[in-house]
Amino acid sequence: MFSSINQLPNRIPPSDKPDPKAAQALQEGLGGQFGEMRTMMQYLFQNMNFRGEAKAYQDLLRSIATEEMGHVELVSNTINMLLEGASSPSTQPNDLPLSIALDSPNIHHFLVAGQSSRPVDAAGNPWSATYVYDSGNLVLNMLYNLMLEATGRLQKCRLYEMSNNKAYRATVSYLIVRDLAHEKVFAKALETLGVSWNKALPVPKLDTSGMPEVKELESRNLHNQQWTFTDESSGLSKIFNGSSPFGDGGELEAIDGIPQGAPIPNLPDAPQEFASGLDGELKKLTQQVQTSASPETASKKKRI
Amino acid sequence: MFSSINQLPNRIPPSDKPDPKAAQALQEGLGGQFGEMRTMMQYLFQNMNFRGEAKAYQDLLRSIATEEMGHVELVSNTINMLLEGASSPSTQPNDLPLSIALDSPNIHHFLVAGQSSRPVDAAGNPWSATYVYDSGNLVLNMLYNLMLEATGRLQKCRLYEMSNNKAYRATVSYLIVRDLAHEKVFAKALETLGVSWNKALPVPKLDTSGMPEVKELESRNLHNQQWTFTDESSGLSKIFNGSSPFGDGGELEAIDGIPQGAPIPNLPDAPQEFASGLDGELKKLTQQVQTSASPETASKKKRI
Amino acid sequence: MFSSINQLPNRIPPSDKPDPKAAQALQEGLGGQFGEMRTMMQYLFQNMNFRGEAKAYQDLLRSIATEEMGHVELVSNTINMLLEGASSPSTQPNDLPLSIALDSPNIHHFLVAGQSSRPVDAAGNPWSATYVYDSGNLVLNMLYNLMLEATGRLQKCRLYEMSNNKAYRATVSYLIVRDLAHEKVFAKALETLGVSWNKALPVPKLDTSGMPEVKELESRNLHNQQWTFTDESSGLSKIFNGSSPFGDGGELEAIDGIPQGAPIPNLPDAPQEFASGLDGELKKLTQQVQTSASPETASKKKRI
Amino acid sequence: MFSSINQLPNRIPPSDKPDPKAAQALQEGLGGQFGEMRTMMQYLFQNMNFRGEAKAYQDLLRSIATEEMGHVELVSNTINMLLEGASSPSTQPNDLPLSIALDSPNIHHFLVAGQSSRPVDAAGNPWSATYVYDSGNLVLNMLYNLMLEATGRLQKCRLYEMSNNKAYRATVSYLIVRDLAHEKVFAKALETLGVSWNKALPVPKLDTSGMPEVKELESRNLHNQQWTFTDESSGLSKIFNGSSPFGDGGELEAIDGIPQGAPIPNLPDAPQEFASGLDGELKKLTQQVQTSASPETASKKKRI
Amino acid sequence: MFSSINQLPNRIPPSDKPDPKAAQALQEGLGGQFGEMRTMMQYLFQNMNFRGEAKAYQDLLRSIATEEMGHVELVSNTINMLLEGASSPSTQPNDLPLSIALDSPNIHHFLVAGQSSRPVDAAGNPWSATYVYDSGNLVLNMLYNLMLEATGRLQKCRLYEMSNNKAYRATVSYLIVRDLAHEKVFAKALETLGVSWNKALPVPKLDTSGMPEVKELESRNLHNQQWTFTDESSGLSKIFNGSSPFGDGGELEAIDGIPQGAPIPNLPDAPQEFASGLDGELKKLTQQVQTSASPETASKKKRI
Amino acid sequence: MFSSINQLPNRIPPSDKPDPKAAQALQEGLGGQFGEMRTMMQYLFQNMNFRGEAKAYQDLLRSIATEEMGHVELVSNTINMLLEGASSPSTQPNDLPLSIALDSPNIHHFLVAGQSSRPVDAAGNPWSATYVYDSGNLVLNMLYNLMLEATGRLQKCRLYEMSNNKAYRATVSYLIVRDLAHEKVFAKALETLGVSWNKALPVPKLDTSGMPEVKELESRNLHNQQWTFTDESSGLSKIFNGSSPFGDGGELEAIDGIPQGAPIPNLPDAPQEFASGLDGELKKLTQQVQTSASPETASKKKRI
Repeated sequence: MFSSINQLPNRIPPSDKPDPKAAQALQEGLGGQFGEMRTMMQYLFQNMNFRGEAKAYQDLLRSIATEEMGHVELVSNTINMLLEGASSPSTQPNDLPLSIALDSPNIHHFLVAGQSSRPVDAAGNPWSATYVYDSGNLVLNMLYNLMLEATGRLQKCRLYEMSNNKAYRATVSYLIVRDLAHEKVFAKALETLGVSWNKALPVPKLDTSGMPEVKELESRNLHNQQWTFTDESSGLSKIFNGSSPFGDGGELEAIDGIPQGAPIPNLPDAPQEFASGLDGELKKLTQQVQTSASPETASKKKRI
Repeated sequence: MFSSINQLPNRIPPSDKPDPKAAQALQEGLGGQFGEMRTMMQYLFQNMNFRGEAKAYQDLLRSIATEEMGHVELVSNTINMLLEGASSPSTQPNDLPLSIALDSPNIHHFLVAGQSSRPVDAAGNPWSATYVYDSGNLVLNMLYNLMLEATGRLQKCRLYEMSNNKAYRATVSYLIVRDLAHEKVFAKALETLGVSWNKALPVPKLDTSGMPEVKELESRNLHNQQWTFTDESSGLSKIFNGSSPFGDGGELEAIDGIPQGAPIPNLPDAPQEFASGLDGELKKLTQQVQTSASPETASKKKRI
Repeated sequence: MFSSINQLPNRIPPSDKPDPKAAQALQEGLGGQFGEMRTMMQYLFQNMNFRGEAKAYQDLLRSIATEEMGHVELVSNTINMLLEGASSPSTQPNDLPLSIALDSPNIHHFLVAGQSSRPVDAAGNPWSATYVYDSGNLVLNMLYNLMLEATGRLQKCRLYEMSNNKAYRATVSYLIVRDLAHEKVFAKALETLGVSWNKALPVPKLDTSGMPEVKELESRNLHNQQWTFTDESSGLSKIFNGSSPFGDGGELEAIDGIPQGAPIPNLPDAPQEFASGLDGELKKLTQQVQTSASPETASKKKRI
Repeated sequence: MFSSINQLPNRIPPSDKPDPKAAQALQEGLGGQFGEMRTMMQYLFQNMNFRGEAKAYQDLLRSIATEEMGHVELVSNTINMLLEGASSPSTQPNDLPLSIALDSPNIHHFLVAGQSSRPVDAAGNPWSATYVYDSGNLVLNMLYNLMLEATGRLQKCRLYEMSNNKAYRATVSYLIVRDLAHEKVFAKALETLGVSWNKALPVPKLDTSGMPEVKELESRNLHNQQWTFTDESSGLSKIFNGSSPFGDGGELEAIDGIPQGAPIPNLPDAPQEFASGLDGELKKLTQQVQTSASPETASKKKRI
Repeated sequence: MFSSINQLPNRIPPSDKPDPKAAQALQEGLGGQFGEMRTMMQYLFQNMNFRGEAKAYQDLLRSIATEEMGHVELVSNTINMLLEGASSPSTQPNDLPLSIALDSPNIHHFLVAGQSSRPVDAAGNPWSATYVYDSGNLVLNMLYNLMLEATGRLQKCRLYEMSNNKAYRATVSYLIVRDLAHEKVFAKALETLGVSWNKALPVPKLDTSGMPEVKELESRNLHNQQWTFTDESSGLSKIFNGSSPFGDGGELEAIDGIPQGAPIPNLPDAPQEFASGLDGELKKLTQQVQTSASPETASKKKRI
Repeated sequence: MFSSINQLPNRIPPSDKPDPKAAQALQEGLGGQFGEMRTMMQYLFQNMNFRGEAKAYQDLLRSIATEEMGHVELVSNTINMLLEGASSPSTQPNDLPLSIALDSPNIHHFLVAGQSSRPVDAAGNPWSATYVYDSGNLVLNMLYNLMLEATGRLQKCRLYEMSNNKAYRATVSYLIVRDLAHEKVFAKALETLGVSWNKALPVPKLDTSGMPEVKELESRNLHNQQWTFTDESSGLSKIFNGSSPFGDGGELEAIDGIPQGAPIPNLPDAPQEFASGLDGELKKLTQQVQTSASPETASKKKRI
């Protein structure tokens, strides 16, 4: 089971301007073959189907699977921030409030969704479970996951070079740093099984000196840390400790629990999208519901 | 963000016998168009893309999305229990340990996965994000979700009639009861927006008197309860309270937090599947890792 | 069986200008998940697989399935009108008659088809039968269809706001009105099974006073009418009668037969597309065929 | 536009026995790459996108497109007949009414649909619009269609050899004969453009003397006839007349209108499938609806 | 088995300018439904699954399948040439080296691949094996292949009209000519089985006088030649000889072996794409590998 | 470009019996996500899109890509051998020659193909180009390819345990050995870039002492050899030499050219499949073609 915390893993600053093109590029990080929906589902399946006694490796998978759920939320919310303001309600008789959609790379942002994120990649292809890899073999799964994180990081570094929109850059940079941490988690797991990586990794080889947003996050050692994302005990720290497997001088930190988060943005109504689509009468009904006295029957039981 | 709890929402009793056919049928509940991966993703997207001020409805979506993550785990683990023992390592020179695969409805359970669950439906089709519906419109989303839960329940009732394997029945019955609770959540949400359902719902119309596993769960009022699946405050109870919207005499209960769970089963090594695939040398390495003293650097920080 | 009538359900005025972007947007109404190919196929399957004695509901499905076939034709022809003139045969030695294709959102309109419509959505995804829903359960099918029509109407209202091209607007407006009628058909069917909708529907809540094309069609009560689309008797009128289920004061009308239609446009040859591609010799052959005396053997038999 | 006639193109005799395997094989004729959904959609698109003045060829496409709509109905209903009786409501406490599903090649017939047909092929793959071919080029379209009909006929001949279930055979045989007629239509159209086929066609080369069901239909010249499937005039007979293009001595007949049909079977309620799923209360409501006096407001208008 | 030759079938001149739009259009020729990956795979499967004694037709399929492998290489390399230079490494602090990606029709060229070709069509849809046709029936396979080549040529003629980029035109023109040769191969094969084509073919009907690149290739009779693409004997020449089946005066030539080729272009490192991504240290390692003395153990054995 | 050699890489012994289930299992090796079509296409794309100066690695990719083309042929032909004899022409009036299809796991072997292989996996899913991975990054591509070969080998080892049919085992064993060689090629390539594998690889850890077919092939050192598959020079031997990267004592051999092959089986006509489908008249025509004197115009030119 899982429990939800009403926070994002990283703060999303306001977007410089409505930016449907950046929003569409960022979809790769959400619904792409190497995006967050995929890492989340792949690690979840490897965790659920885990066999044998090396349970510390199962704990490791569970921790990262849980973290990726929050990444899905982070990317989705960033896309929404980039789309916000791209259209607005009509103020003049002959306005075309959604004409922006015809010049946007993903018309579905405006036509199928209510000006918000979709479970597709940057070319519009829907996410598919054929992406999910679980062979049941521990070495092979770790090898695949290492490659997956490295590819994810490669793509985020390319995304970084495509736009300098602040909201976009904040999230892309956060993922560059976290993907590096995950690359280290899986590389370290393989190191415990005998592999030495020498200087072959990480991918990509990156000079972060020209990437201020990335540098700032690395200055907090975020690229060497891994939370357990649980209140319970975890074998993660048995594997993820000591020196970075890439010989970059990093000191690995396994940390119990969940990192400090940031608020989830609120999207306003978009009448031109009929979202939420409540008219006066319906709005009044929802307000009555929300301002009613807390019902007596609720909240009595609680898991101990 | 999310946090993981090392429990399943319901206990899975041992399977009567290895049962690849029941396992394959149950895949519909995992990777089917109306299965748990879909409900989880649909409610997650509707929650992330939520617009407007009716935040109690957003809280409601978040609670159920989080519950569905645990349902994904429950179904996956049940499939694994049904597959366990279907093959075993060779003991004689000319054994064919995996010959069962040629007579199983989903050979991928044995050939692609290591005798375990897959993100596909009961006909073998991979899960697709084209299933995820989010129009941005509150009434429409609630209407779709109601239909989705009713269809899910319909399919689980059909699954119930296909096999009486104990492990299978326990999970199918649990989902029949929880889908009914979710049907009520969305029907109630629409009731707050003015709809009266009278006797049209629920779907399916079901006499549970011949379904002892279902009756037992209903005797605990599980079909009228909804947890918030968070330690934080939630508007769920503003909506989900009072009488059942189906006129069946049920009293709705919104409950803070997470229900009591059951242990997650452990799958043993399956050498004939090369899963986990660790030989003596590698096994020794993983044991060293796991029995090492807890590393000093870890666990220092913790979210407050 | 079905019989064809050489008319479209509504007139398509000439397009203001060749408009590949509007054409691509309108593809959602043809091959989209909530477009006309889908409604047609969904109702056709629900009709063919119908079980039980409530045959009036089966008749209702058959009527709308048949109407949707004409909607497929209407949308396809409108897309073709919007594409017409977007390219033209070369007149100068170094012309690039199809260079427009490189700047169009769906290059396949020019490269795969002969400057004409395709069975895909506005993002270029091919239509898939995974969209078709038929649970066999009457209440559930009606609930799904209601949601389907409301979503279709929502998308058409968004399309309306994207462009004011006359040909485009005429068809989009017609579909907004007909989708509302169909929303009422399914809402009414559920009303006969006990549901009261109060003010929750329709979706979207729409003030048509700023939409002159829509208002004109509503002035003919087109949003409260449903034809049977057959010369035979039908139970449709047993269900679809009385007051609108949305409390908007509409009086529902079930009408025998088929509405008055409008001519189907003729597309000229497009030599730059090699469509029809007949050269002088072949053209002469087809003319001979078409001007030959009506062959004696034909037309003798006819169904009585 | 289209109009519906409440008949199937050919009679379906009762199935010898419930036969889910034959039902699944026959799905290829419904949702397969060369099945009836595909021919219907391909000819419809070629008709809607038709360019140029050779309108007799457009009429030809429209006629066959319309006929294929009825074939879709015929195959769907035959699948339903083959499935009927495969399961039945529980009569004993521990019955498993749907256990048959676990031994059927397409569990979705029982789990997703209510024991009825699905828009998929015989291997369970959903129908896809990527199958639809329309190049805009007349010669090429005719060539493709000829190949399509020949492939359809080839597959139906293979289906004939798989089972001798009477309901199955009746429909398969009808399609073998009609596919041959369609092969002739497109071969003839190419003949008018200059091609001579000599003895290369038809495909497959078939001795029907051992196929009594086929012979009976051929004795009525059904393999040389083509109806216009419209009450209006059509250029079909300009092309489809004279001798068979395959040198088999056939005399081609174009016929105005629609052939005599056969009744559409009625499927009873299947309570074990929750289809139609009406309980006593809901059944009473639908009966009230159906036995109400014909409402006065209906049926007043009618297309002249 | 196959053997590789380090040459392309035709020379690719330098691209006039970086041209992502032309690159994307040309993807249809690589990963499109009628592109080179498809012809290659279709003929390969028809060859592998060939039945019966008409082995000359099997040889014919093998020859063209092998040629198509080289076409895949030609189109991929041309796309790469068109993309080359579209981005370049950052030289200023605030450069966005990959910003071009946001304005390109296929962002995946820059985001998923390292500024290079992808196995997708011009609309971004991935290639699918559902395209591959092999009925096992000789006449039908030949008929389909004829249609396939004619459609491929039609699409290339449309591509020709979209851009006059020199690199693009060189490859498109080469394919127009080779597709015509292949059209003749399959038309000739059907001629040996009795068909006369008269003036119905080829498709498209094309006046090449305005297409200098095409004319130049035809002046070398490239549209009437077919190589065997093997050093072994082949029955190809038994079928492909004599006059062109299209009555255009061409004299067919079957030629043993493989045509003279052209060099394969070298793509430089693209650091902004992290491709090849070798840093100084890794580059040194690869140079050591490549300049090492040829290892003694190699090259000893060789197939005779 | 490529040249074809009329041989398979390994001999296929006769199948013990017609074996559609083994045939279907083996489809995973042809059209599966980790099968031969995928390795062939992945390495081909990585070769065509290669960037930078480390050309020895590009040569390595080209060699293995070319070898995989032969593996595609080997697996396809083995499937055909397993299917051969599964049905036979009717000899009695009421025979059902293809009834076997209804009990076979892939009915398409008999219904869509002419009793032969298909480009699908063992669950019937068509091969998709979404499988093809090319990041442009050398380290990452090598890492992925290593994982790909190890997964392929894992699946073949599972296939080995499913059936002991001789034809099946011969091909499965050959692929187990060649996949190991390829695993070594990519592991070695990463070793040149600094990685040490120690005992983590290969996957799976396998005791071949109980696998006589595998042992026999290994006794010829086939698991340590790699041919260049070209007559031209290649940098392969610069990388693939010295000791096995897995510390198993193997001595790596790069060999110029192509290995000795085995004959390609001939499939006879299958009249019940209408394959090849030639009747007496058409057969005579093909015989005339094949016995005609070698035409004079052919074979004059040849590549030097």
